[in-house]
Formats: sequence, structure tokens, C-alpha cells
Amino acid sequence: MNPLEFFRLQTREEVLALYDRFPPVGAEEVDLAGAGGRVLAADVPAPEAVPSFPRASMDGYAVRARDTFGAGPAAPQYLEIKGEVPMAAAPPQAVGPGETLRLPTGAMLPAGADAVVMLEYTDEHPDGTLEVRRAVAPGENVLQPGEDVRRGEVLFAAGRRLLPQDLGLLAALGVARVQVFRRPRVAILSSGDEIVPLNASPGPGQVRDSNAYLAAAQVQEWGGLPFLQGIVPDDFAALKSALAAALKEADLVLVSGGSSVGARDLTLAAIQALPGAQVLVHGVAIRPGKPTILAAVGEKPLLGLPGHPASAAIVMEVLGRPLLERLSGLAPRPSWGGTVPALLSRNLAGATGREDWVRVRLRQEGDTLWADPVLGPSGLLSPLVKSHGLVMIPLGTEGLPRGEMVTVRLFGGGD
Amino acid sequence: MNPLEFFRLQTREEVLALYDRFPPVGAEEVDLAGAGGRVLAADVPAPEAVPSFPRASMDGYAVRARDTFGAGPAAPQYLEIKGEVPMAAAPPQAVGPGETLRLPTGAMLPAGADAVVMLEYTDEHPDGTLEVRRAVAPGENVLQPGEDVRRGEVLFAAGRRLLPQDLGLLAALGVARVQVFRRPRVAILSSGDEIVPLNASPGPGQVRDSNAYLAAAQVQEWGGLPFLQGIVPDDFAALKSALAAALKEADLVLVSGGSSVGARDLTLAAIQALPGAQVLVHGVAIRPGKPTILAAVGEKPLLGLPGHPASAAIVMEVLGRPLLERLSGLAPRPSWGGTVPALLSRNLAGATGREDWVRVRLRQEGDTLWADPVLGPSGLLSPLVKSHGLVMIPLGTEGLPRGEMVTVRLFGGGD
Repeated sequence: MNPLEFFRLQTREEVLALYDRFPPVGAEEVDLAGAGGRVLAADVPAPEAVPSFPRASMDGYAVRARDTFGAGPAAPQYLEIKGEVPMAAAPPQAVGPGETLRLPTGAMLPAGADAVVMLEYTDEHPDGTLEVRRAVAPGENVLQPGEDVRRGEVLFAAGRRLLPQDLGLLAALGVARVQVFRRPRVAILSSGDEIVPLNASPGPGQVRDSNAYLAAAQVQEWGGLPFLQGIVPDDFAALKSALAAALKEADLVLVSGGSSVGARDLTLAAIQALPGAQVLVHGVAIRPGKPTILAAVGEKPLLGLPGHPASAAIVMEVLGRPLLERLSGLAPRPSWGGTVPALLSRNLAGATGREDWVRVRLRQEGDTLWADPVLGPSGLLSPLVKSHGLVMIPLGTEGLPRGEMVTVRLFGGGD
Repeated sequence: MNPLEFFRLQTREEVLALYDRFPPVGAEEVDLAGAGGRVLAADVPAPEAVPSFPRASMDGYAVRARDTFGAGPAAPQYLEIKGEVPMAAAPPQAVGPGETLRLPTGAMLPAGADAVVMLEYTDEHPDGTLEVRRAVAPGENVLQPGEDVRRGEVLFAAGRRLLPQDLGLLAALGVARVQVFRRPRVAILSSGDEIVPLNASPGPGQVRDSNAYLAAAQVQEWGGLPFLQGIVPDDFAALKSALAAALKEADLVLVSGGSSVGARDLTLAAIQALPGAQVLVHGVAIRPGKPTILAAVGEKPLLGLPGHPASAAIVMEVLGRPLLERLSGLAPRPSWGGTVPALLSRNLAGATGREDWVRVRLRQEGDTLWADPVLGPSGLLSPLVKSHGLVMIPLGTEGLPRGEMVTVRLFGGGD
């Protein structure tokens, strides 16, 4: 019998809680131009205030507020228009008593002025006089220095993945280099006597090394640096030395295990024989994906993936990605994207004692988005390839009925 | 007055319809290991059938169907168990009359056998005899060669962005290299006398070159290869020669324009002076983003972005990304991801005569996800940085009421 059956299966939540023990990888400094998508390793304080000078927050006229005192529709005040402040340039002159300068939103408030009268409460007369029909208080319609960003304020906290607009703001503030976490290096080993390289012709019962390519592309998409360590035969010494070599180079080791029980036991034995190794998880309550292994070798994690390609892909989505994100230094964050609500198009039975991850294909029919379950053995990749994402049937439920509104977790974020 | 006012603003749909005239960039062949996220330039036919041999689709026993004829709960048939077919290995022997081999889902059907009896309709007796309590038809519980993928069938069509699982399937079939579109090379020019480099201290009215960094990170995220062409002063000859140089190297040129009307007119004049140039769009009915320019120079597109950083960022999301995807060869596809439904937390007025794109921040409150509009002038980046995505108020509507269910288009797909 399968020795895994006698080991208690751990739930997804239990596995994720173990990730805290693995520290994020170290930091490096990079140029802003190469920082898109990287994860900040240190808080970034604002080196300057934004705006650095007072700016108009409305289109209108720069005035001394006291000059507008008492102005109203029935009692307008009159100011002399001395010219215009161009956008993104210094004002041509200061505003003296009884004077005004036209200015657009965002332009620099001229010296002497302390408020802006909005366009709609004014009229320009042909003689160059401005009619002001509303009084303004000092500071009205003006963005004060530091009002948007205070100098020294934390712009972005460590753990944030930098978006394009973040780079724009950092560039505007003159931040040319940032401290980011290294991209985690991820070694990918394929184990199993039946695995042959991509360019080989598989004999009877042999399969090409597809899991390594699949996992490498996932690691890349999620911000890691994958490297393929090749195929290791089902041999204790070979497996142990390949794992030790991988752990020297990598921050995370993925072993795509042989699919037979014997091969799995061998992988487990090889892991346990590594100095400082501790097996933390040996079997998870997830379908597909039961024969998953998580071990710590010193401070480095090792994830043993199921041999069936679709199982390996789903375990990577559900357990591998959060592990990589932990090592990447990414702060826990609400996840709003990457999912879409859809109606389940048929009844789905759950897996007793396991959380069930079902592949679905989306289909638009009028206003309704249907999720069609794509069934098929986890040894085949094409059902996965035909799917757009996954639906989870929670542990301890009997299944989901046709017509149920489900949340589809999209592959590649749905792009 | 602004000369753009006299030009008819074009709607988003009108602009997108113009993209058909720009051909996708050329193709290149890459190793499968580097093909993740790339766009296929040619259909990929399956070089082999999947499975390439008959496989069990259930755990059970390989049999000759005729040997089970007449079997039922009250009248079991008995077969001799000759051993087991291991997963992913050749069967140890053929199945002769009256014989059977145990086999797991996915294993190769032994010669002689033509069906599989499911485990639950059998019992193994201590003497090595199998009791079969149900008859099977030939082919039952067997996946025939080519049933999953037929040889020569189109696995993936040109225009598909390759997902990790696609690489897995291609690897399984021995496809080592694929034809993909080149990544479009995107030149980014910043024009404007008021723009200073990142490492400079801006004088009064000057700003650092933030738009170029923002646009470069967007291009990178969307699969292009950005390169910064630097800052060009507001000078016709300098602008024209910089544009011509950029067009030689790039598949797409982005010009982040000066924000003053004079600077915009200069950019337009420089574009029009290029040999083979045709201005297609000069002003769009989108807020923010009105002063956007689209031109064709020969077969290459040139996109003139508004000078205000937040406007430039939003125009890139709404118009720049589809243009880049067109050049990338990406096939039009349903877009299910990258959005989330949320309740609008306050009334929003629309922009008369323009489609309005409003920045929003998401906030979870119990079971409700609120979209809080983040207002602020488009000259400031921090409101954009504080936002999680955009909500669109359609052209010709007065706005959206508080409590309305809106679709939030997430930055970075929500990841």
C-alpha cells in the first residue's frame, strides 16, 4: 500500500502557514529603469515634497485673497490682468495689490498671490480688467507644497511590487536607484526513470520532460529566475547529490517527482538524507496534488511536485506561487484581480476529505458567463490547456450544483 | 485658443478601429524554454498523437472484453491475475485469454487487452484470481491513441500568448522550438523645454522626465522592448530628427508631449514633416487624454501622449496597450480577467462629450468591495499611485450614482 495513506494529509491553509519560516532572499540595488515589477526591499521615503511649490488646483486667476473681499454677483471686484502663468514654467512676474495673472490647473502660483479664483466666477473685459464675482479665502484652490507628498513620508513600503505608475512617481522625485529583493533562483529537477529529454523519442511507457518546462514558465511569470537542472534517474545516490547541488545554487528547489509510489518514496528518502533536512509536509488535502512534499533544508524550501503534469501545474498555482512570493519578499496583500465570477454549467461532486481544484473553460452566452468543467485525467495536459482557470470546491463540502455562482481563478491573471 | 478644439475628437472605438492598418512585427524562432508569454506567429500542429498508445482511463484491470461477457453481480467471471502494469512503463507481458493485469489510470494497455474493468466491480482472491462482476465492451475505460490530441491537429493557433501549460504540452509532444512574433521595439521620446533628466534638480516650473519611465515600465509589462530616446527640446528641427531616428530603430514610437499648447502644435508639425507621415487622430474623446495624437509613418505607428503624467498613463492603458498588442500579433480575444466588480462609493459626474476614466481605490468592508474615486489633477502622479484601477463612465452618460455596481479595470491585472 501507499505509505502516504498513513501520513496525515495537510490542508492548504496548514501548508501556507509553514511558509513563514522561510526568509525572503537578499536585496540588491537596481536602476529605476529596470525596477518595473520588482519587489521593494526597503521603504522609500520621499526625498522632496510634492508639489515643491504652491500650485493652482483649478483653472482661474491668481489673486491676493484680500483683494476679493466682499466680492459677489451683485458687487464684483475688479483686478488688472498682468498676463498668464504658463504650464510648467516660472510665473512671468509677481502679483501686486489689485493685480492678477491667468493660470491653468497645476501651474505655479506667482509670488504675492495666495489664492485662485475659479474661471466661472470671472469675466475678462476687453480693457484687460478682470471682473471677480466671488470672494476667496487665503489658500483657496491652491495645492500647498507637500500637500500631495510630504518630504520624508514613506512613498512605498518594503514588500510592494512596483507598478509602472510607481516608477513614474519615483522618477518625478529624482529617485534613480531602489533597493529590491533579488529574483529568487529556482532550480527545477525532474526525477524518474521514465522521463526522457524533449528531443528524445519516448519508448513504451516513457514520457518527455514536460513538467520542468511548465514549472519554469510559471516561475518566470511569477517573478523568479528558473533554471533546469535536468533529469535524474530513480537512484538514491544520484537524486541526493542532484538535490544537494541544486540547493547550493538555488533559493528554492522544485522536484517534479516520479509518478510511481516507489519513485516518490525514493525522493522522500533522498530529501531526508540531506544534512539539515526536515520534511514538513508529506501529502496535502488537495485534489489533484495529494503526493506533494514540502521540506526545509536549513532555511531553504524544497517542494516536491506530483508527477502527473496537470497535478504539478495546479499544485504550483495553489502552493508554489505563494511560496515563491514569500521568498520574493512580496508583502501579503488583498487579491482583487485574477478572478472572474461565472455560473457553473453542471453539477460537480467534491473530493471526500480534500479541497478540489477543478479546471474550467469559460463560455459567454448572451449576458451569462458559464464555467464549463473540463474533466480529464491529471496525466494529460490538454484538458488543462483548454481551460481558462480553476474553481475550488472547499474541503468538507459535497460539491457544487449547476447554476452556482463560482469564482474562477484565471491562468495568467486572465491576460 | 487651443487649435485642438476645432478638430473633431475621435472616440476610443474609432481610434481602435484604425489599428488594423498597422501590420504585426516579424517573426523569430525561439527555444521552448524561452517561449513563455510570447505570441505564436504560426499555427502549431501536433507532431504526434496523444496518447501515442492506448491508456487506461480508470484504475482497474486490463482484460479482453469478450472474457467478461455475461458477467454480473450474480454471475461473476474469473480471470487469472498475471501481474501489474506500472505507471509510465511498458506492460510486463501481454494479456492472453482468461488473463488480466492490474493497472492504474494512465498506464499503457497491454497487448491483447482491449478494455479495462473498474476496480469497484472486482475482487482479488488470495489464490491470484480476479472476480469480475460486470461485463465491459471493447474500448471501455480505454483512452485510444489520438483521442486527446490527433496527429496534425492544430494545437495552438497563431496569435496565442503562450501560457505555462502550453509549454508543458508542447514539451510533451517534443516541440523544441516555436515561431513567435518578435517583441515590438518601442522608442520613447520626451519632448518639452521644461523636462529635465532624472538626476537633475528641477528649477521653477521644471519637472523631471517621469513619463518616460512610466511608459517604459508599461511597455515592458505588456511584452514590448522599450528604449528611452531621451529628452528633446521644443525645437522643430531637433524634434523632427529625433522622431526620424526613433522610427528607424523602433516598431512603435511614443512621444510624451510637452503639456503646453505651443509644444503640442510643434510636435504635430514635426510629425507632419516626416516623409510618409499621416496624422490619423488629433484629439480623443477621452478624459483625461484629449490631446492624444496617432500618426502613421509608412507602416509604423506613432502615438503622441498627453504631457500630464496621469493622463499619459491612462491613455497608455486605454489606447497604447491595444496598439502594442496589435503590433505583437496577439489575436483579439475575450478579456475575462484584469477586472473586478465593486460598488461605487460616491456620485461621479461624467465629462460632457468624452468618455471618462476615473481612478479608484478599492476598499473591502465586510462582504462589500467599494470603489472610492481618487480625484486629483492629472499633473500629479500620487493619486494614480494610490489607485488600484480605473472605472469608465461611458460617453454620453451623465455620470454614475453612488451604489452603482461598476467594473474596475485593475492596474497590472490586479496582481
